[in-house]
Amino acid sequence: MKNMSTSTSSWSVEKEMNEVERIELLSSVEDAHGGVTVDVKESMDSKMFSLMLKTSLFYWRQQGKRGVWIKLPIEFANLVEPAVKEGFRYHHAEPDYLMLVKWISETTDTLPENASHRVGVGAFVMNDKGEVLVVQESNGRFKGTNVWKLPTGVVNESEDICTAAVREVKEETGIDTEFIEVLAFRQSHQSFFRKSDLFFVCMLRPLSFDIQKQDSEIEAAQWMRAEDYADQPFNQKNELFKNMAKICLTKSEKYYAGFSTMSLTTASGKSTYLYFNNEDFEPSA
Amino acid sequence: MKNMSTSTSSWSVEKEMNEVERIELLSSVEDAHGGVTVDVKESMDSKMFSLMLKTSLFYWRQQGKRGVWIKLPIEFANLVEPAVKEGFRYHHAEPDYLMLVKWISETTDTLPENASHRVGVGAFVMNDKGEVLVVQESNGRFKGTNVWKLPTGVVNESEDICTAAVREVKEETGIDTEFIEVLAFRQSHQSFFRKSDLFFVCMLRPLSFDIQKQDSEIEAAQWMRAEDYADQPFNQKNELFKNMAKICLTKSEKYYAGFSTMSLTTASGKSTYLYFNNEDFEPSA
Repeated sequence: MKNMSTSTSSWSVEKEMNEVERIELLSSVEDAHGGVTVDVKESMDSKMFSLMLKTSLFYWRQQGKRGVWIKLPIEFANLVEPAVKEGFRYHHAEPDYLMLVKWISETTDTLPENASHRVGVGAFVMNDKGEVLVVQESNGRFKGTNVWKLPTGVVNESEDICTAAVREVKEETGIDTEFIEVLAFRQSHQSFFRKSDLFFVCMLRPLSFDIQKQDSEIEAAQWMRAEDYADQPFNQKNELFKNMAKICLTKSEKYYAGFSTMSLTTASGKSTYLYFNNEDFEPSA
Repeated sequence: MKNMSTSTSSWSVEKEMNEVERIELLSSVEDAHGGVTVDVKESMDSKMFSLMLKTSLFYWRQQGKRGVWIKLPIEFANLVEPAVKEGFRYHHAEPDYLMLVKWISETTDTLPENASHRVGVGAFVMNDKGEVLVVQESNGRFKGTNVWKLPTGVVNESEDICTAAVREVKEETGIDTEFIEVLAFRQSHQSFFRKSDLFFVCMLRPLSFDIQKQDSEIEAAQWMRAEDYADQPFNQKNELFKNMAKICLTKSEKYYAGFSTMSLTTASGKSTYLYFNNEDFEPSA
């Protein structure tokens, strides 16, 4: 019985193979993890796509492939539904494309997860008079509260934390700075849909002093005595802000070692920043 | 002429309003930033959705709304194409839904960006004999290379970095540990599609010593002399790994202050971890 069933099954497979041979396969690129990626580059009728996808899945399964990725540029949104009907799930989306994925192997699904964190920076910029650069924002949570806060912002795609801090200060206040170190960071969850948030408090040294505030986002900007900044009720009432402000003051008043940067080249030739306590460690090239 | 044209235009608006009044609006929730979110909860014909969306957009524009968000659970993939046809772009996707967005105001588009980083952890676990816990992986880049590396892994959705490091060590080696501090971190870009990567090297103290390696991902696990770990050609040839290994050794041999954690409550009542140099700073509650 077992033999018969096996032979019937392999006959079916052959028959099915013959039937599907007339349908073209989707063009795909293999990856190093036993998967394939289909990068759709031209418009297609959704029924034809559906047939080609079924055929291709059959073929990839025969080949022992594991993960199948489909990258659909937004102009081919008509192909989302047929892919979902074939059991694909969403992996991630950028403004201009949607990535779908399906695990077609019997082995455990080891598909990597989507990006999980947004990264923000706050800039502690202090001049020689012991004054710190602060702003009032035109929008958002602190609008109209008279709270003076550090310039903050979100790290852009492919932007380094140390670069983002310098950029935000320049954009919001017109002040040029150089990055010194990360003083502390905070991780919080479910802060943006299901995503988490990492916020790095950075110490920067000012290279210019005349404030030219940005009109659209910033209501006001000034140099403020560091103690006055830290003493604001807003900073005193909140454990997190209180401690972040105190770390900044500790840094300005006496010894506090944060993490500075070292620019390195990875095995694959990319340049990358390592952040570490360089008071306590002498790096080697 | 100008007056006439204005009056013609307002008549058209009125006429259009009368026509669209018969179409129901999509149900939506307002947000604090002048936007609305449509959370589609039941299946809909794509043509009907398209009509309702057009009508709703017209209404929201009249109301001065700015950002319009549409959350489409994957079972309603048939509604992706009509939303895109109305000018929506993708914002982000999770396995079970796609979020689309459109800015409908004349003001500058201030819609927040998608999550940009994946977060990984590496665990430096050293016992009293000066031996470090190392593994060889069954898959991925180091497969078959005989390189002994620190246990590493990706931080899960809503997981703290300090928790993730302890979890990965337990999963890969069976060793119980407690988190001590972040020794260093590295940021790299374009490491996963367009996304960046933050990798935190964490020092953990072992609470148990008998290794029970995980079968699926780990080829081998052992306690290894710290110097032997650092001396591996793999660590010596690569600037980044060499320095990360040396920071671990510096920590084990003498004074090196990384960032330890303090658990805090945010203004909105969420608990969060602040990471900072607690050798140099005394936190206050």
